[in-house]
Amino acid sequence: MASQRPTIPKGTRDFSPQEMMRRNHIFRTIEDVFTRYGYQPLETPAMENLSTLLGKYGEEGDRLLFRILNSGDFLRGIPREELSTMDTRDLALRIAEKGLRYDLTVPFARYVVQHRNEITFPFKRYQIQPVWRADRPQKGRYREFYQCDVDVIGSASLLNEAELTMIIDEVFSRLEVPVLIHLNNRKVLAGIAEVLGVGERLREMTVAIDKLAKIGLEGVTQELRERQFPEESIQKLLPLLTYEGSDAEKIAMLRQELAPSETGMKGLEEMEKLLDHLQHLPLRQERLFDITLARGLDYYTGTIFEVTAREWTIGSICGGGRYDDLTGIFGMPGVSGVGVSFGADRIYDVMLNTGKFPDTTLRATEVLFLHFGEAEMQHVLPLAAALREEGIACEVYPDAVKIRKQMSYAHHKGIPWVVLIGENEIRERTATLRMMDSGEQERVPFENLPERIRKMKEAQ
Amino acid sequence: MASQRPTIPKGTRDFSPQEMMRRNHIFRTIEDVFTRYGYQPLETPAMENLSTLLGKYGEEGDRLLFRILNSGDFLRGIPREELSTMDTRDLALRIAEKGLRYDLTVPFARYVVQHRNEITFPFKRYQIQPVWRADRPQKGRYREFYQCDVDVIGSASLLNEAELTMIIDEVFSRLEVPVLIHLNNRKVLAGIAEVLGVGERLREMTVAIDKLAKIGLEGVTQELRERQFPEESIQKLLPLLTYEGSDAEKIAMLRQELAPSETGMKGLEEMEKLLDHLQHLPLRQERLFDITLARGLDYYTGTIFEVTAREWTIGSICGGGRYDDLTGIFGMPGVSGVGVSFGADRIYDVMLNTGKFPDTTLRATEVLFLHFGEAEMQHVLPLAAALREEGIACEVYPDAVKIRKQMSYAHHKGIPWVVLIGENEIRERTATLRMMDSGEQERVPFENLPERIRKMKEAQ
Repeated sequence: MASQRPTIPKGTRDFSPQEMMRRNHIFRTIEDVFTRYGYQPLETPAMENLSTLLGKYGEEGDRLLFRILNSGDFLRGIPREELSTMDTRDLALRIAEKGLRYDLTVPFARYVVQHRNEITFPFKRYQIQPVWRADRPQKGRYREFYQCDVDVIGSASLLNEAELTMIIDEVFSRLEVPVLIHLNNRKVLAGIAEVLGVGERLREMTVAIDKLAKIGLEGVTQELRERQFPEESIQKLLPLLTYEGSDAEKIAMLRQELAPSETGMKGLEEMEKLLDHLQHLPLRQERLFDITLARGLDYYTGTIFEVTAREWTIGSICGGGRYDDLTGIFGMPGVSGVGVSFGADRIYDVMLNTGKFPDTTLRATEVLFLHFGEAEMQHVLPLAAALREEGIACEVYPDAVKIRKQMSYAHHKGIPWVVLIGENEIRERTATLRMMDSGEQERVPFENLPERIRKMKEAQ
Repeated sequence: MASQRPTIPKGTRDFSPQEMMRRNHIFRTIEDVFTRYGYQPLETPAMENLSTLLGKYGEEGDRLLFRILNSGDFLRGIPREELSTMDTRDLALRIAEKGLRYDLTVPFARYVVQHRNEITFPFKRYQIQPVWRADRPQKGRYREFYQCDVDVIGSASLLNEAELTMIIDEVFSRLEVPVLIHLNNRKVLAGIAEVLGVGERLREMTVAIDKLAKIGLEGVTQELRERQFPEESIQKLLPLLTYEGSDAEKIAMLRQELAPSETGMKGLEEMEKLLDHLQHLPLRQERLFDITLARGLDYYTGTIFEVTAREWTIGSICGGGRYDDLTGIFGMPGVSGVGVSFGADRIYDVMLNTGKFPDTTLRATEVLFLHFGEAEMQHVLPLAAALREEGIACEVYPDAVKIRKQMSYAHHKGIPWVVLIGENEIRERTATLRMMDSGEQERVPFENLPERIRKMKEAQ
């Protein structure tokens, strides 16, 4: 083993300091916006009881749960002779009672039900934590990845949808990522299914429409035919999906088409109201009433959101919607909520590929004090402390090695300023300050050093 | 199931918004200090290969690892007839190849070895992530808890120890938790064992001394007797453990006692040098050369640290030390490092019990706009946006419910200011601003509202 490099499980990642600083830039921007809208942080355990998780994500989801072997003698209580004939899935349930969380939504619902008496509703929470899925690893798909969810539960008001749109707008504006915010309403889709005479097959229709971006109009047509949708319904659906016009024109058109459907008209009314709210707001990103937006998840019942980047094609980088009965699965029915989830990995990829990470996010240390000798240290250490007092991140090179090596360290860490304090400098109580990019040097009295660096930092 | 409240696995916790805001106050203070000293963030996956984890924490540690059942048909390749006779531990190794990380140290060592060619040494990293241990849950001991580790690897200089002491000093000063920083050196302990004639039994002696705070001097004596240490050695050890004097007096005393031991004298020299470095620094917390400080972990080889709170007894709230061969277990020998770990849970308890959390850490939202009706919203939403632009966290109550209920929401969330905008206010473009604590109200023109709130915020 000693000669073999250790590795990590497939589908998982180490995040190097450089990656971490970029990721933190994203997380902190998101968190700061959430906070500014009154959302509060929540964390739930990595492990949940399997009884909480199973059956919540469909059969495929159950298969993708990571299960945790019971501690100690996990075969305790299982007659050994049964082992050789027991079904693998039954055995799994006996020897593993806990699983790693698969998303943040089900743990959130579980939390709300468990703590319903302590919570002040409407409950506005955000949650930024990793989730785990035993998916086949492939490019851009990991077995461990972060989700950033923001939800408000216990309020049916469309103001929440307006607020979430503002949050999306602000997050991407601050990150300098131009986006298009797609909005739709599940009730509009339900109305469409109803007037097409396939009201009871809304789910299938949604699943097919959801693939539009991937498989195109012909693909969707083919899928609906394979699912034996009536040809007449398909022919009536296609012009709706390809309709081009302003949001107002879409609403006018659908008001005609959906007139016979109460649900459809309700959805349309919600969409109109939301768009009206948004009109009075200083939004910076483009938005669009997108009839083709479907979202795969079953539990959405009202407004649905999806965000795409305008300068880099990578699919949805944020999405969500309103659900009327998320906590019903845990015995607390009739509580409406709405939320969106930001896809940190994809946002990272968009920003990396379009050069949106500011250089300063990568710079941990601003000043490096070179190491000339032990004797100098009693002058260097207090000076470094004085810089830190001013909020300047600095390091003292710890070892008495060649100056060339110390300079190379500054270079590799992207440290912009280096301070040299040798015998002369101590005698004159004046530091030599070197700019790493230009190689220029200047002398700065010890007591002026914090102020000098602070000014250069501000000037950047 | 529907009628039963869902629960979480024993030994795990949900962190409510209130707890999260307090915890974030601790984590952000720690992180900000780390960053200011040039340490960079790192994250490793929750899961590691069991081959990475097993054998690194002793037999007890192996037992406490959470193991993850292989995905899919985990019995694949195991002849069914062998199942009924196979040893449980052997079976565990066949059906679970991954485990949850047990600490941040082994994953860090694994990372350094795996990425040795990309890393610039000395490598200064911090890591704040949860770890998992299948320990018996009890008061203050959890199966999932956060560790906050800060380490520098690839430098043998004692300046790193001085720097870590500064970091400890600054973290607790900023958190306003008065502490005592205990310092010792494993080589001093090795020297003591050597001159007592029990040099080859350093580990046992260390384990016994480590319990001093818990079981007292008599307990230690008894344990050493049970372990059949020579009575003469025990009698020579006791006065060293109870020696009272200044750090300088301790060093002078030990210089006599340890003269025959090269290792002991080396440790003493290191301790003296470290104390000398510290003397020139503007430290605010008390520190102590503590001969009785042992630390349980095997891999320490030089300076060791431990921090106790002065106003609340809860054991060590931060600790660490120098290790000369952490990466040796992964085939990269001879790399010296030093680091400490902050115990977030205990620091939380100390701060809660001594009233050290500032009220403002609990306040997510500063302003609540009451909801008088839909029509008012087109004035309220832009005003809320203007406040957020100024960095003021605010909410608009989303539903048109009784004002009493909205006020109760503000009260429960600890929101200090409430803004009322009804018909009159809109006509006069002047908001009514209510202070929640005094109940006083004032009228503020819309355009002055952000400035007015900002000033009140600053005045707090």
